[in-house]
Amino acid sequence: MSLSEFTGDVAACLTTLSFFPQAIRVIRTRDTRAISLVMYLLFTTGVALWGVFGIMTMQWSIIVANAITVILAAMILGIKIRDVAAQRGKPPA
Amino acid sequence: MSLSEFTGDVAACLTTLSFFPQAIRVIRTRDTRAISLVMYLLFTTGVALWGVFGIMTMQWSIIVANAITVILAAMILGIKIRDVAAQRGKPPA
Repeated sequence: MSLSEFTGDVAACLTTLSFFPQAIRVIRTRDTRAISLVMYLLFTTGVALWGVFGIMTMQWSIIVANAITVILAAMILGIKIRDVAAQRGKPPA
Repeated sequence: MSLSEFTGDVAACLTTLSFFPQAIRVIRTRDTRAISLVMYLLFTTGVALWGVFGIMTMQWSIIVANAITVILAAMILGIKIRDVAAQRGKPPA
């Protein structure tokens, strides 16, 4: 494995792993106030497309990394959407 | 441009752009309570390494996308670290 391949692999591990603590935090605290809905809409779609790119080019490391990330990002997005919907359903203060 | 290249480019645009609304939200509201410190530590390091990978393999699209993302992620991380530090400095309630 070349140094550039190793750097890319470490980078992929870090960016994929990073969504675990955020997903765990959101699931535990149920607090999504500071989380941007638009960020997670764009990010989840983008990561899903990275997965499609991985399937099209048959690159397993890209498929696996993005499959894990899309699950975590979609969980955070789902809880955020539920919070936004609940907030809209409330009578005005 | 092949369909897979187009898919990868759209994916890269979406995942890079997604950090703009989150950075803007954090800067405006100064609210980082729901943001995971560990996520942004891992993510910012990972994206910086993706940039190094781009430099090593001389792929300009990877360099540019990750340079933009690392700036946005580092801004969110910086505000989060400041908040965590301020919280630790407070006397216990």
